[in-house]
Amino acid sequence: MQSIDDYRDHFVSFLEKFVTLNEPQNLYNPINYILNLGGKRLRPVLTLMTADIFNVDYKHALNAALSIEVFHNFSLVHDDIMDDAPLRRGHQTVHEKWDVNTGILSGDAMLIMAYQLFENYEADVFQDLAKLFSKTALEVCEGQQYDVDFETRNDVTIPEYLKMIEYKTAVLVGAAMKMGAIVAKASASEQNNIYEFGRNLGIAFQLQDDYLDAFGDPKTFGKQVGGDIIENKKTYLYLKALEFLNDDDKAILVALFSSQPEQVEEKIDTAKRLFESSGAAKATKEAIQVYTQKAFDNLESLNISDDKKALLKTFGSSLMNRTV
Amino acid sequence: MQSIDDYRDHFVSFLEKFVTLNEPQNLYNPINYILNLGGKRLRPVLTLMTADIFNVDYKHALNAALSIEVFHNFSLVHDDIMDDAPLRRGHQTVHEKWDVNTGILSGDAMLIMAYQLFENYEADVFQDLAKLFSKTALEVCEGQQYDVDFETRNDVTIPEYLKMIEYKTAVLVGAAMKMGAIVAKASASEQNNIYEFGRNLGIAFQLQDDYLDAFGDPKTFGKQVGGDIIENKKTYLYLKALEFLNDDDKAILVALFSSQPEQVEEKIDTAKRLFESSGAAKATKEAIQVYTQKAFDNLESLNISDDKKALLKTFGSSLMNRTV
Repeated sequence: MQSIDDYRDHFVSFLEKFVTLNEPQNLYNPINYILNLGGKRLRPVLTLMTADIFNVDYKHALNAALSIEVFHNFSLVHDDIMDDAPLRRGHQTVHEKWDVNTGILSGDAMLIMAYQLFENYEADVFQDLAKLFSKTALEVCEGQQYDVDFETRNDVTIPEYLKMIEYKTAVLVGAAMKMGAIVAKASASEQNNIYEFGRNLGIAFQLQDDYLDAFGDPKTFGKQVGGDIIENKKTYLYLKALEFLNDDDKAILVALFSSQPEQVEEKIDTAKRLFESSGAAKATKEAIQVYTQKAFDNLESLNISDDKKALLKTFGSSLMNRTV
Repeated sequence: MQSIDDYRDHFVSFLEKFVTLNEPQNLYNPINYILNLGGKRLRPVLTLMTADIFNVDYKHALNAALSIEVFHNFSLVHDDIMDDAPLRRGHQTVHEKWDVNTGILSGDAMLIMAYQLFENYEADVFQDLAKLFSKTALEVCEGQQYDVDFETRNDVTIPEYLKMIEYKTAVLVGAAMKMGAIVAKASASEQNNIYEFGRNLGIAFQLQDDYLDAFGDPKTFGKQVGGDIIENKKTYLYLKALEFLNDDDKAILVALFSSQPEQVEEKIDTAKRLFESSGAAKATKEAIQVYTQKAFDNLESLNISDDKKALLKTFGSSLMNRTV
């Protein structure tokens, strides 16, 4: 086994060789641009690490890892168009630097290229990877649609919200790990367990994101603290608060999340106070704990050494104890 | 063997069963809408016919045929956004009936669903189909990008133009037929020959489209005659005219294709007169003939009965003698 940083370095070297000088440049330059904007490379690292855990050289999983990263970046390019986002990782988004049409077409090409990366594997492995990929990719689209739908709905339930973040974020974490297990030809039950570990960890990670957006340390949190509150996003914190608050306070919170004041400090303070007084903040922390524990339980049934289980636990804990 | 109409009927019945009532509806309703707008269903019919020609029940090729049709409609949804087109087959385009974001996301889902349809085949066939599909789909993206690039270029050559229409249109016709051959487990050389037949016929078909747009019979031509001239599209007719005209007439044509007059009749008449006097109209008819003949030559080396060759020739000729 290697360290997270080692896997990331190996992956980035492989990615850099993937950069194409293909024609037409107006199609391929935006793809090279977005793939080289950096990022934590969390998903491909998980693919490589999982291959290693199931006893195959991580190098054998590089193409699968790259497929996951190309797909992830495809979804960022198209989501940024839909969200009209000007920046991604501190740089211009593709549709800002070029235009919307370029973003659409380059994104389409990336989705196809993600499938092509499986062609480096034999037919059985190819089919297993492509089937998992298609199922996951379609769920990511469904998750994105639910997220869009929820913006204009006032009756979103907690189970609906959990399904949305599961589809939009968590299934890709599970799939990234399962791909490592597929490449390593792990048994079906082991593939399933590692998928569930990743999926549960992904849900915990996203709930953590909701929590930190309101209660993170401004010194270490990468984005503006309170960003979700400013944008009236119906996060887990918000939905739980609605569930717990009495009618009067509920009306205050609903009104607050329909407002768009110029001075945001008071809005953020009021929302955070309601999140805490209602018990929503506590409930969110508990939910993060529940999904992290579910992930750890998935590890117990895996037929791998205790060292490797400990490594995955350490990795999971480090994600959950992050302040950024 | 069956008639074109029979294959089409079988295909449409299969397509109708594919309509999903999946959630979220805002993702899947646009997909059902565009797939049921009709159209000639030319590509899937070719897949079914080719399977039959290589001696496997056409039913076995229905999923591959549907994949081709779903992909074709995916490309229409995204192209219509890029072209800002209000109408498709006489009905509102997806981004007009819903919005641009819905068009992007539903299109993405269709591209993934096209791959999923291959899951109905065993691993070897799955891999062959998916590899051909990815290669073709990426070429279609490249063709679309070349088409966009050519709008703002004044030095497009005939070979560049031919490559653009080959990628944007013809490779999908070739791939539709090759998929039928893959499902039927025809030999590699037979797969290649039928692909080349489709590809050459596809190029001829697109050149025919360029020709008919200017010289088609307004009574039978589905679109407005002269539409490409009105939109200043650099078609094969235009590029050939530039090649043949003397400097004075060339300047007239270039100026004409920079203009956007309210009254279009005179513009159309002048362009058509230059297309004919320059010899471009004749050269275009000859090119159609050349590519049709190339396609027929590809048939000769196929190891299929003369009856079947005759059927494919009749089909090809009917496409080339169409007036619509």
